[in-house]
Amino acid sequence: MRWFITGAGGFVGSHVADRLLAGGHDVVGFDAFSTGRRRFLDEAVHADNFTLVEGDTLDLDHLTTAMRGCDFVFHLAANADVRFGTDHPRKDFEQNTIATFNVLEAMRANRIRRIAFSSTGSIYGEPAIHPTPEDAPFPVQTSLYGASKLAGEGLIQAYCEGFGFQGFIFRFVSILGERYSHGHVFDFYQQLRANPGELRVLGDGCQRKSYLYVQDCINAILTVIDRSAEKVNVFNVGTDEYCQVNDSIRWITHHLGLDPVRIYAGGGRGWTGDSPFIFLDTAKIRSFGWRPKLSIREGIIRTLDYLQTNPWLLDEHA
Amino acid sequence: MRWFITGAGGFVGSHVADRLLAGGHDVVGFDAFSTGRRRFLDEAVHADNFTLVEGDTLDLDHLTTAMRGCDFVFHLAANADVRFGTDHPRKDFEQNTIATFNVLEAMRANRIRRIAFSSTGSIYGEPAIHPTPEDAPFPVQTSLYGASKLAGEGLIQAYCEGFGFQGFIFRFVSILGERYSHGHVFDFYQQLRANPGELRVLGDGCQRKSYLYVQDCINAILTVIDRSAEKVNVFNVGTDEYCQVNDSIRWITHHLGLDPVRIYAGGGRGWTGDSPFIFLDTAKIRSFGWRPKLSIREGIIRTLDYLQTNPWLLDEHA
Repeated sequence: MRWFITGAGGFVGSHVADRLLAGGHDVVGFDAFSTGRRRFLDEAVHADNFTLVEGDTLDLDHLTTAMRGCDFVFHLAANADVRFGTDHPRKDFEQNTIATFNVLEAMRANRIRRIAFSSTGSIYGEPAIHPTPEDAPFPVQTSLYGASKLAGEGLIQAYCEGFGFQGFIFRFVSILGERYSHGHVFDFYQQLRANPGELRVLGDGCQRKSYLYVQDCINAILTVIDRSAEKVNVFNVGTDEYCQVNDSIRWITHHLGLDPVRIYAGGGRGWTGDSPFIFLDTAKIRSFGWRPKLSIREGIIRTLDYLQTNPWLLDEHA
Repeated sequence: MRWFITGAGGFVGSHVADRLLAGGHDVVGFDAFSTGRRRFLDEAVHADNFTLVEGDTLDLDHLTTAMRGCDFVFHLAANADVRFGTDHPRKDFEQNTIATFNVLEAMRANRIRRIAFSSTGSIYGEPAIHPTPEDAPFPVQTSLYGASKLAGEGLIQAYCEGFGFQGFIFRFVSILGERYSHGHVFDFYQQLRANPGELRVLGDGCQRKSYLYVQDCINAILTVIDRSAEKVNVFNVGTDEYCQVNDSIRWITHHLGLDPVRIYAGGGRGWTGDSPFIFLDTAKIRSFGWRPKLSIREGIIRTLDYLQTNPWLLDEHA
């Protein structure tokens, strides 16, 4: 098997690459390194069975050429920035929707028919049911990020029906862990590094969110890909728990031995389109035998440990 | 009020233009006339309050300029061809998804915040519930057409949340009536005109479908736009009945006084991605006081009458 990974230099993509390489697989990593980072591939690039192609998913010709000879595509390249969607709607649309169309067309040209796609719990908008199952009532989109991912899901499903593809769509909660480089733990740690006495919090801190440790996330993906023969596979991926932002703050500050003054922006949402309660029903993927090994709290601690030992990642953003 | 209509030269768009003009409104019609037809606007172009702009929704600059000074956008331009999606997936994606993104961006540039969008019952894929309500379980897409329209819906919803838009999303069954120029009644009539003794039927003729007369469709749109103050408005639009393709054949051949040999392609679906049973729950739009005036059978007869008196439309396809 030869695996193709878009976004191979990204947070999740680089871990998938490492895992596949460790299993002796051939891997082609594709990344434009606009948000992906070469340092995440420091180990991978030394593997004989890894090929790195620097390229943009918006360049269909290059993508098609790079994909030649592969058997399976992990489409993980994305603009993963749910928060700033209204600042640049084109970015979500191009990098999540058009890019996904290009990936599917490149696959079709290369007669590759199996794809795994990183979608998001954000596509449920503000769900009425918690935990939210995969077949929740048809949602209304509340973010450009969610809308752009929903479009990607629909395209993949249509290619499954129309062109005999097999699609694996994973609706993730927020993923945490080593190489994590955006989101609330990153923001909080960055703030506290600059000023240990003060922490600015979006919303009122009562938003309820679910998080998953990145290796648990990858275990979930690999488990399902290995075991499902269905044409279209849609899976929620998350822990069976949620926490409030305030819980997370408590864990973070305790782990760092800090007691900052908290300054709340107020309101039930962190930003326009923020879902105040994300908690996914994962019964479906659990039926395949998968279980997360780390709790949300443990995932947050691992993330902090990584950020503390990798200050370069924060310096890039400083 | 100044209304902007994309796809103004299309089947539904031209009727919307006529209705708004008859009500004394200012209308800007935008169409590339790739599938739209100038003859559908024969009356409209003689109205003082009608401006016709020939342009492509994929040309964002032109679209933005043309939209200037308008208050409301009917985004009806589309590749409405659900059947041949797998022949040209890019067409659905560009004309339904990218075009919708462009319309939203043109609106944002012009500070226009109200949009009505022609979506489709096809986005329910193969629903488990009939009649299918708007909040049916999160569907799996089975056609490129459905997927491309779902993407448009999601974008509109995200712009409502992110940019203060008001969106009206109409999930239509198949629309019939004057100026109808594709779909099964058109195909059957065209076949019978060429050879009254034989009729080739996709699938087994047992597919169950719902249809709506175009003026009933426009009544539905105008009713809701006038009466709803909600931010995101999603409505099924259809009759409270369905028929089998075989019923439709009986009505058509009886009306035309023909008794052709029927040759069935076989199978439960007319084509890849065809939904064998489309029947939408319209309780929501009915709660606004709307009712269709014509039955499916009456809509089909009106369509036949129109095609018989407008052979030019068939000659174009011959």
